[in-house]
Amino acid sequence: MTKEEFLVTPYTVEGNINYEKLIKKFGTEPIDNILLNRIKKHTGELHFMLKRKIFFCHRDLNWLLNKYENGEKFYIYTGRGPSGKMHLGHLLPFLFTKWLQDKFNCKTIIQITDDEKYLFNNKKLEEYTKQGLENIKDIIAVGLNPKLTEIMIDTYNSKTLYNNAIHFAKRLTISTIKSAFGFNDSYNIGQYFYTSFQAVPAILESVRQGKNIPCLIPLGVDQDPHFRLARDICPKLGYYKPAIIHSRFLPPLQGIEGKMSSSKEETAIFTTDDKETVRKKVMKYAFSGGRKTLEEHRKYGGNPEIDVSYQYLYQLLEPNDKKIKEIHEEYKSGNLLSGELKQIMVKKANEFLEKHQKARRKAEEKIEKFLIKD
Amino acid sequence: MTKEEFLVTPYTVEGNINYEKLIKKFGTEPIDNILLNRIKKHTGELHFMLKRKIFFCHRDLNWLLNKYENGEKFYIYTGRGPSGKMHLGHLLPFLFTKWLQDKFNCKTIIQITDDEKYLFNNKKLEEYTKQGLENIKDIIAVGLNPKLTEIMIDTYNSKTLYNNAIHFAKRLTISTIKSAFGFNDSYNIGQYFYTSFQAVPAILESVRQGKNIPCLIPLGVDQDPHFRLARDICPKLGYYKPAIIHSRFLPPLQGIEGKMSSSKEETAIFTTDDKETVRKKVMKYAFSGGRKTLEEHRKYGGNPEIDVSYQYLYQLLEPNDKKIKEIHEEYKSGNLLSGELKQIMVKKANEFLEKHQKARRKAEEKIEKFLIKD
Repeated sequence: MTKEEFLVTPYTVEGNINYEKLIKKFGTEPIDNILLNRIKKHTGELHFMLKRKIFFCHRDLNWLLNKYENGEKFYIYTGRGPSGKMHLGHLLPFLFTKWLQDKFNCKTIIQITDDEKYLFNNKKLEEYTKQGLENIKDIIAVGLNPKLTEIMIDTYNSKTLYNNAIHFAKRLTISTIKSAFGFNDSYNIGQYFYTSFQAVPAILESVRQGKNIPCLIPLGVDQDPHFRLARDICPKLGYYKPAIIHSRFLPPLQGIEGKMSSSKEETAIFTTDDKETVRKKVMKYAFSGGRKTLEEHRKYGGNPEIDVSYQYLYQLLEPNDKKIKEIHEEYKSGNLLSGELKQIMVKKANEFLEKHQKARRKAEEKIEKFLIKD
Repeated sequence: MTKEEFLVTPYTVEGNINYEKLIKKFGTEPIDNILLNRIKKHTGELHFMLKRKIFFCHRDLNWLLNKYENGEKFYIYTGRGPSGKMHLGHLLPFLFTKWLQDKFNCKTIIQITDDEKYLFNNKKLEEYTKQGLENIKDIIAVGLNPKLTEIMIDTYNSKTLYNNAIHFAKRLTISTIKSAFGFNDSYNIGQYFYTSFQAVPAILESVRQGKNIPCLIPLGVDQDPHFRLARDICPKLGYYKPAIIHSRFLPPLQGIEGKMSSSKEETAIFTTDDKETVRKKVMKYAFSGGRKTLEEHRKYGGNPEIDVSYQYLYQLLEPNDKKIKEIHEEYKSGNLLSGELKQIMVKKANEFLEKHQKARRKAEEKIEKFLIKD
């Protein structure tokens, strides 16, 4: 893979992702200011992840807003593959989901794909289910409304999921899966079948209510191939295609390429990291956009676009537009040093995590309220 | 396909099946008299389907008997794909299962694969589920003990099935499925995945009891490829391989080639056919092993091996060994004419069906007792 190349599928994210090229490759639509203004009409204010194009492209958002404006409420569907502990990047779609839920008063379905992680990895199934329950604490901790939110765990809700998944499965050939995910004949049949499970929540409210309910899926852009397939099939089953809104990846601490990994402790800040761990990780590993020497930095300035600390602030930790603009200018002008930028980031991350961890501890006893029965 | 060729898979049965060659092709073991005597030690008498080698080959029956003789009771697992109404051929494994259940006092699991039929055919899922409930009446009507028998419908019990199936699915590649079933890349992912669902009842009692329980699967030989795959995987999951005992096919009325079809009314006698329908079908369609003229028949005799009426009597309708031998001799010698043989068959079939249909009507209210909750 050359510097220009990148690969984004639900199972591989590699290279230096060019999000503009990705929009063309995937055939999604960029989120432009006209669309943002249309959303703002309903929400009053825009979430900073929209303004900053962290959610950068979409499918059928205009259609969804047409429906909404015609009185058809939509529901939200998103999910989590419980491969390990959750890091800051994993929280991004959930924080945005919470905002959407509040603004549109939406029913929300969250799918925890323990079966998927088992089919694609090497631990026992029970460990992914257990990890899923841990992840649910983080998801609840973002503040989702238990009255509006249902969390499905694939192995807990496999009856509902399987009985609907076979309608997708019947309409997806091996060839189609191969071209969407790059699998070959040495992959297992569970891996091929799995996408039909991920499709189900996109029609589930319609199935339950016996009429079409629009669905909006906020997700990391790597998950898009699942829903390209699902969207092709939904109309054949008599359901609306789900609308999708796609987010970028929060980069690994080591630099802007690819996605963070739950399996490498030093590439990410986990939701359960303590203050000292966060400080050490950032100081030691966070890739800097600063110059080689103090003199050069003061003279030429740093590069916030590749500076990981800045990116964390921009994408997640500093919602205040005025403040983030200041940091950008100060760093670019050379007034703000890399070490100082890291200090700001550590402070904001630890403030964020202190609040999150408190909510996470309280979430433990709320889990049952969110889980649904088959 | 030449006259010598035949194909037997769960999804295609074609040609004039040579059961001896099939044993070699599938790698099963023929049921010999030593094995029959060993069974007889436990059952007192032998079912006529064993004596007559209607159940003609097996996998690991000696192992199963070793276990049994060492005090490990086994359970039985068999099933039905509810593609349509049941005909006499479909009853064969269930009649034998009932005998096994009585003789060995065995717990019995029966799987109704409505999802499979949906994935491989063109009707709505609900129609196969409904057909499954109809078929269950026939299955109960053979006299299975409700205290020992559990009937699983795939879409009713999909939680139990899926949560266990993924362990098989993870260990079955696309290549393996292709070579076992002859599928290609244009088949759907549900068809590929399905075999993992059919594997589950072969380990289910062991899963439930948390220790290995031997399993015996009586089935039509076309279903063997599913269990060749399952048997490879069971030990990897820590479970015994199920033992299998395979039956021949009751031929279609039109002749000895292939398997009957539920979709062609005239090829089979259905369990719900009335007396007059049975008589008409046999008289009009049942392939005869008789000679062209009365004179030739009296002189050279008929051929019971290809005579469908004789085969129905031999395989299913005339359990009395003395009587079937007489019919064989009389027909072969030319004393018994084809029309007369057909009359005997019609009489026996209608006696059988009168009893079956009475039991079938009573079965309707018993269904709930047999179904299991997830």
